[in-house]
Amino acid sequence: MKIADFQTEQWMNQYEGRAVYNMTDTCVSPLTYQELLSFDTSHLLSSIKLDYGSITGDVRLKQEILQLYQSGAEENITMAQGCLQANELVMETLLAPEDTVIAYTPSYQQFTDLPRSIGCHVITLPLYEEDQWQPHIADLKQAFQQKIRMVILNNPNNPTGTVFSQEYLQELYALASQNNTYILCDEVYRDPAIASISDAYAKGISTSSLSKLFSLAGLRSGWIKGPKEVIDAVNVRRDYSIISTGPLIDALSMLALQHQTELLDRSASLIQQNKELLIDWLQNNPAFSIVLPSAGTVGFLKYHASIPSTEFAKGLLDQYGVFYVPGACFQCESHLRLGLTADPKKFKKGLELTAAYLNTVLQ
Amino acid sequence: MKIADFQTEQWMNQYEGRAVYNMTDTCVSPLTYQELLSFDTSHLLSSIKLDYGSITGDVRLKQEILQLYQSGAEENITMAQGCLQANELVMETLLAPEDTVIAYTPSYQQFTDLPRSIGCHVITLPLYEEDQWQPHIADLKQAFQQKIRMVILNNPNNPTGTVFSQEYLQELYALASQNNTYILCDEVYRDPAIASISDAYAKGISTSSLSKLFSLAGLRSGWIKGPKEVIDAVNVRRDYSIISTGPLIDALSMLALQHQTELLDRSASLIQQNKELLIDWLQNNPAFSIVLPSAGTVGFLKYHASIPSTEFAKGLLDQYGVFYVPGACFQCESHLRLGLTADPKKFKKGLELTAAYLNTVLQ
Repeated sequence: MKIADFQTEQWMNQYEGRAVYNMTDTCVSPLTYQELLSFDTSHLLSSIKLDYGSITGDVRLKQEILQLYQSGAEENITMAQGCLQANELVMETLLAPEDTVIAYTPSYQQFTDLPRSIGCHVITLPLYEEDQWQPHIADLKQAFQQKIRMVILNNPNNPTGTVFSQEYLQELYALASQNNTYILCDEVYRDPAIASISDAYAKGISTSSLSKLFSLAGLRSGWIKGPKEVIDAVNVRRDYSIISTGPLIDALSMLALQHQTELLDRSASLIQQNKELLIDWLQNNPAFSIVLPSAGTVGFLKYHASIPSTEFAKGLLDQYGVFYVPGACFQCESHLRLGLTADPKKFKKGLELTAAYLNTVLQ
Repeated sequence: MKIADFQTEQWMNQYEGRAVYNMTDTCVSPLTYQELLSFDTSHLLSSIKLDYGSITGDVRLKQEILQLYQSGAEENITMAQGCLQANELVMETLLAPEDTVIAYTPSYQQFTDLPRSIGCHVITLPLYEEDQWQPHIADLKQAFQQKIRMVILNNPNNPTGTVFSQEYLQELYALASQNNTYILCDEVYRDPAIASISDAYAKGISTSSLSKLFSLAGLRSGWIKGPKEVIDAVNVRRDYSIISTGPLIDALSMLALQHQTELLDRSASLIQQNKELLIDWLQNNPAFSIVLPSAGTVGFLKYHASIPSTEFAKGLLDQYGVFYVPGACFQCESHLRLGLTADPKKFKKGLELTAAYLNTVLQ
């Protein structure tokens, strides 16, 4: 099946290995395996037999996951290999050729180009930088003049860090409800202070993982939470993709979630430090600006110069080892995706080198 | 996208938990996590950072995997979440609506119904029980009168244990080569004594995993080996499904493959014991027969009675806790899929109870 190159992932795959200052990582500084093992005080791992384990995920893991939500039971969850596969499974289950889907731009390319590869029509609604990267209700109403099968969003959004406004979400739920429309919300950047779509809308499907705020991308542990009938349908499709996530990953994920408060606090503290460094740096560097992300791990840094973003990002990497995903990967020039997850000393130095490089370019 | 229920997987998901005598497991008795850890004599795991790791798989792991083949380099391999996802990625990458695919029956349902869900035409060629479950060259020649995009097979085959004959494979390679046809071969039941399609045919794509003969289904570690241009194309599609298999699973997989000889010997010994028990049992139970599998972990046990296979399998489970996948899941009545992987004492007892149950039914 034809599919577009996934520009952000290909950029990361090609260049990330050369990063000295990784300024674009979406994952909070990863735990080591030893650190994760230190949570296993009751020697859970010592009894694991490496068979398939529970097909849709260990029941004890599902119970821990449910702590992140306001509603739902085990039957509302199925596990996946990361949030990426969770999204893929939902789309492959619920979408068919000729369906129409609403997605947003700039956002994660999977939400537009995977539906396109299935044969769907995709309406992309803009997020407006001048309005704090919020979408417009008028655009949504216009799009809903067609029959919409699914709305796909990322809340908080990658790369902008947008948390969709309550006003917008209420309008979205009302329109979707009237039109029997699914809403798939990738909530991989969500912290529990933000409401989950799966708690707020009857046909809302939430996906997430331990990769971003839980600092455990290496586990590749993701899940889908949604209405039982959607989970049941996903599980029919899932038999063709993944038998299980396996008892080892399930157990390690459970250990992580048993320590969710300390992991989330660690992430919040790191992100807060980097946000403060960013604010200071912006005051001294008027060639850059940003809509400060209210949640999540990323923001979309704007630079006020005419150099193409790909050239800027490549030059920065070549000269200083400072690594960004350029706005071009999100069809949005004059921007760089900025992660707030790096070690603060490196983050500060990375920002300084970013400004220094722009100065040499502008001269 | 519409897809058929995956009958074998749904049967396993629904009933396997009740098995006292699991006579249908395709995986050799699983290692424990502790047993696998005992291979880590150089403390590889202690240095692991739980980030995404290498995107297409750790280079050292790929080098170990290459030891299972006669040809190829790292660029010929990409990792997946089990052999199931490996197959899925190959099909999603190379197949498009209206393509025609050849598959075999009885075999693994993914090979027919995943292409159908993509919109392909699927020609299923029979394996003939009376010919040791071999396919007929005449059927193949007939099928190749159409333009064939891909041939999909399982060698050794699930559920029959067939190793495709060299004569048949040579004819297949010749026809495929003349017609520029890909061959996807699921080699998850292959031991290194059997030639891999990826070493034998220029457009041959081999998939496999550590689940079956390596006794490590719980790792969910699979891979694709094929021509560089196919792997490159798969990696484009793969960005929408899986970022990586993660550094922990890659490291554990590498440890397992460093001990491949001892793991494969352990499996061969267990399967041989069960085959001998099976041969003895068949001599005393003429109501059953089997084409003895020449490789792999499964065979397709025939019973000479008119009871439907689903009823037989359910009755056996209810009465004695003896668990099989019925032939009906493979569209082939009067058969039960027999795994050769159980503990020999349980295997012997399971066979005895199977015969006892048929006797009560026949009375």
